[in-house]
Amino acid sequence: MEIKPRTAWILVGCALLLVVTAAGAKTGALNVDERGILAADGAWARAAAAKDLETTVSFYAEDAVLMAPDRPAAQGRAAIRAVWSEEFKDPAFAISWHTETLTVPRSGELGFARGWYEATYTLDGRTVRERGKFLTVWRKQPGAWLVLVDMYNPDAPATPINP
Amino acid sequence: MEIKPRTAWILVGCALLLVVTAAGAKTGALNVDERGILAADGAWARAAAAKDLETTVSFYAEDAVLMAPDRPAAQGRAAIRAVWSEEFKDPAFAISWHTETLTVPRSGELGFARGWYEATYTLDGRTVRERGKFLTVWRKQPGAWLVLVDMYNPDAPATPINP
Repeated sequence: MEIKPRTAWILVGCALLLVVTAAGAKTGALNVDERGILAADGAWARAAAAKDLETTVSFYAEDAVLMAPDRPAAQGRAAIRAVWSEEFKDPAFAISWHTETLTVPRSGELGFARGWYEATYTLDGRTVRERGKFLTVWRKQPGAWLVLVDMYNPDAPATPINP
Repeated sequence: MEIKPRTAWILVGCALLLVVTAAGAKTGALNVDERGILAADGAWARAAAAKDLETTVSFYAEDAVLMAPDRPAAQGRAAIRAVWSEEFKDPAFAISWHTETLTVPRSGELGFARGWYEATYTLDGRTVRERGKFLTVWRKQPGAWLVLVDMYNPDAPATPINP
């Protein structure tokens, strides 16, 4: 079959439209609530990576709960600040995380995020690395999404980093 | 002030009405979704306490995720069954848990439960006890509430039980 120049241009146009639509579908799949949570989560992760205590803690709701392994639940911002403050004092401490799955109920006032984290810290005088998973519940408040529950646990016991 | 018999009966009636109303308010505070989740959670906990593998696993959605400490996330019922099967094979294994806080978004298709658990199991040849906390996401399906995400971690490292 011979394709005439005009037909060829129409085909190119259709192909471009398909690519744009596909790209649009990918970003368009996130609604305003999902984008709001992901933006807050990204800013929160950057604050924690920078060991910025006040900014890190500011992402928790006043009545938030931090459910960390090997310690009781920390209830409220003051208790949560104490946990992060202790972590940040460790010179070896470093953390990064990434949300992989996001679910927002239809009513849109809450959302929960799952993902992975990687942390480095001092344990019994040695620098260790830990990889694990988290589950975070976010709550929409006027003008902001804040963390209501923050829970994580490791995929395996932490292992020493060879110098 | 003298209280006449008739006034006394009215006062007794009012007092009874207050007691009944207070009792009603207590149970009435739970809506149909909250009662549904708590009933499913109670039946699930009884199945796990009885080491009934199939019933325990039946409370998870097909696409559920079990996020347990010191192992990667178990995705799907088959992977989750493998974890519970391993736990139940331990003759020392015992578990109980209790939901303390329940949050159901207005749209009612999901719910979040937090609470405590206590488990006994064999670790390095010794029987140990562990207490901790959990966060469970429930999803309403036709005729049933099923677990979508099940995550927990200990409040402290497990301690040996003295014989």
